[in-house]
Amino acid sequence: MDFLRDLPLGYRYAAIYAGIRKQPDNDLALIVPDKTANAAAVFTQNLVQAAPIRLARKYLKSSRGRVAAVLVNAGNANCATRTGDRVASISCKAVAKALKTKTEQVLPASTGVIGVELDGKLITNNIPKLMSLLSREAFEVVARAILTTDTRMKVASEEVRFRAGTIRVAGLTKGSGMIHPNMATTLGFVMTDANVSSKHLHGMLVRASQSTYNSLSVDGDMSTNDMLALLANGASGVEPNEKERRALEVAITQVMENLARQIAADGEGAKKLIVIETTGFETEDHARKVARSVANSPLVKTAVAGSDPNWGRILAAAGYSGVLFDPAKIDIYLQSIHVCHAGLACDFAEQELKQKLDESEVRIRIVLNGRGKAQARFFTCDLTEGYIQINASYRT
Amino acid sequence: MDFLRDLPLGYRYAAIYAGIRKQPDNDLALIVPDKTANAAAVFTQNLVQAAPIRLARKYLKSSRGRVAAVLVNAGNANCATRTGDRVASISCKAVAKALKTKTEQVLPASTGVIGVELDGKLITNNIPKLMSLLSREAFEVVARAILTTDTRMKVASEEVRFRAGTIRVAGLTKGSGMIHPNMATTLGFVMTDANVSSKHLHGMLVRASQSTYNSLSVDGDMSTNDMLALLANGASGVEPNEKERRALEVAITQVMENLARQIAADGEGAKKLIVIETTGFETEDHARKVARSVANSPLVKTAVAGSDPNWGRILAAAGYSGVLFDPAKIDIYLQSIHVCHAGLACDFAEQELKQKLDESEVRIRIVLNGRGKAQARFFTCDLTEGYIQINASYRT
Repeated sequence: MDFLRDLPLGYRYAAIYAGIRKQPDNDLALIVPDKTANAAAVFTQNLVQAAPIRLARKYLKSSRGRVAAVLVNAGNANCATRTGDRVASISCKAVAKALKTKTEQVLPASTGVIGVELDGKLITNNIPKLMSLLSREAFEVVARAILTTDTRMKVASEEVRFRAGTIRVAGLTKGSGMIHPNMATTLGFVMTDANVSSKHLHGMLVRASQSTYNSLSVDGDMSTNDMLALLANGASGVEPNEKERRALEVAITQVMENLARQIAADGEGAKKLIVIETTGFETEDHARKVARSVANSPLVKTAVAGSDPNWGRILAAAGYSGVLFDPAKIDIYLQSIHVCHAGLACDFAEQELKQKLDESEVRIRIVLNGRGKAQARFFTCDLTEGYIQINASYRT
Repeated sequence: MDFLRDLPLGYRYAAIYAGIRKQPDNDLALIVPDKTANAAAVFTQNLVQAAPIRLARKYLKSSRGRVAAVLVNAGNANCATRTGDRVASISCKAVAKALKTKTEQVLPASTGVIGVELDGKLITNNIPKLMSLLSREAFEVVARAILTTDTRMKVASEEVRFRAGTIRVAGLTKGSGMIHPNMATTLGFVMTDANVSSKHLHGMLVRASQSTYNSLSVDGDMSTNDMLALLANGASGVEPNEKERRALEVAITQVMENLARQIAADGEGAKKLIVIETTGFETEDHARKVARSVANSPLVKTAVAGSDPNWGRILAAAGYSGVLFDPAKIDIYLQSIHVCHAGLACDFAEQELKQKLDESEVRIRIVLNGRGKAQARFFTCDLTEGYIQINASYRT
């Protein structure tokens, strides 16, 4: 497989079914760099934070951004649980023991239902087996093991060629409900074989998050377990200089944008990816706020589900974004068809547009014709009956 | 009919089908106080405002809060339309001519689809017929004529007895999508036969809105046409003093709360009214923000739809409300059953609670066990497949 050949060097992966989720799909996964990696991570901004989030934050600080393993479970968020902290820490301890490393170098992450106790033994008893399965080829096995209501695996990769050699970047991530940006969203792990310090990784990750995971919304619900980690193990032997780090950052951003698009496209019940582009605003922050407001409008999202060119809802959602602008200076394009000029209806071929709205990707472009030049892009999905069906009885 | 007997004195109502909406249901309505009333109104905070909103605001200012008629149409929002301002003003002019009053004393309001031109002749040609139909008995006819995707009429009334006589308050309103609070939400008209100045009416309306229409959300989408007006024609002959005005304000607030509950309960596709109560916060604003955050969570709303006691989603939504609190001090009750204590799961009878969640009204109570005493209440509804079905092809 092409994809496997292009993976970053020096990482091994494994996943098994540990009995955490009801259906017998793999639910416990491990990512292990051959040599301890430099790392950075961003976490949910929710006040309610799962035990693994609190612990990962603490460990990353005391290890000064050094990660020897990432341990992920699906099926239980280990959030709002009495035994949460203990379960997370004994799990990390078990991995550290097996790897002969420090506990604080094991990064824990969980996803699944909130408020249900997680049986730590399901994890600790399975660490030896997990260790025995580690292989470079199991990248996609891990990508599948961390999924919850996702309908498909989400992976992406890039490579950058420098004079000194080639650097590879690969990421795996999961959606697909409770997705709303604020710092990292959902679980995502990006690996590179470049040799980069934790400090530089942190800067790259924060900047890359802004236009990718932080410009992504499925349902506006911010999770208690979101985490996005970036690991660099140096296995390529290439230590990029300042200019080369910028090229690496572009590759990392591309991987993350690719993953973010996949999350939006596979949002719970989603049939269509919606890409909202705003341009002509005074600041990027304004442009992003307007795009986000449209992205979070259930009326816009249901209209897209029904291929209904109801641009009035787009204009209305822009109007309550909190950004000040003159509605008479707004133009709107749907699938590149001009539907609203200067805040008013354009003549457009309704049947032709309805057909174009049946496509799997819908582009909404909002142009403010003023003096500003800032722009932004936001990823979301349509809102269908499927979202309701999935979420009306997730827990039971 | 009891309800009709208790209506405020001195108002007449009429509605007809003017051909504005496709299906032949009444879509044009008139409310006329026998003598010009004092009035106050609150409007949408959306930057994108329909022509009737802009005009109503202007008229109310130049008439100094005097209203001789309210003209409402359903089926077309007259928003983002080329001819919008002209259509709204000639419509008011036609009513003013028929009533021999000033145009600025006619309050226009519209609801329906955005961005479709409204044919002014459909309104002006029908004013004589509308005038001929005016009657005290047509209150409910008007209440039905202003509906859009609502499944039922929404009316409420109260009366207050003073030594000097009885004062009556009655209101009619509509939902049921694009409902999100910020000042007034949706269309609502509250009439009283008390003799109260416009200035006092304004204060009462703003205060009463806070805990009623501004504590109401169906889908988080703020409309371009929201308007809530309060009229007082003095027909009861009773001019309440300061203390009596407080009693009148209680009655007005009750009518508005009753209407707000009806809007939430009849939200698009809704099967259940959800009442969220928050208590123990430091300020009312904090309490309301937390309640609103939970009310707007699609995951909470779908869980209620499925009678799934997924309190973790409630805790998570409180956690991203923007209000700072310690999650370990939160207790949650669902239908009065204790489901979360100190941020952790309680032992509760799941099957019993699931049955209770099948009721038509679901109460979510969030208690912060701190030093604060402020509380708030928010009204919303569950999120079902019906919402999607209604909105996926509203326009076409």
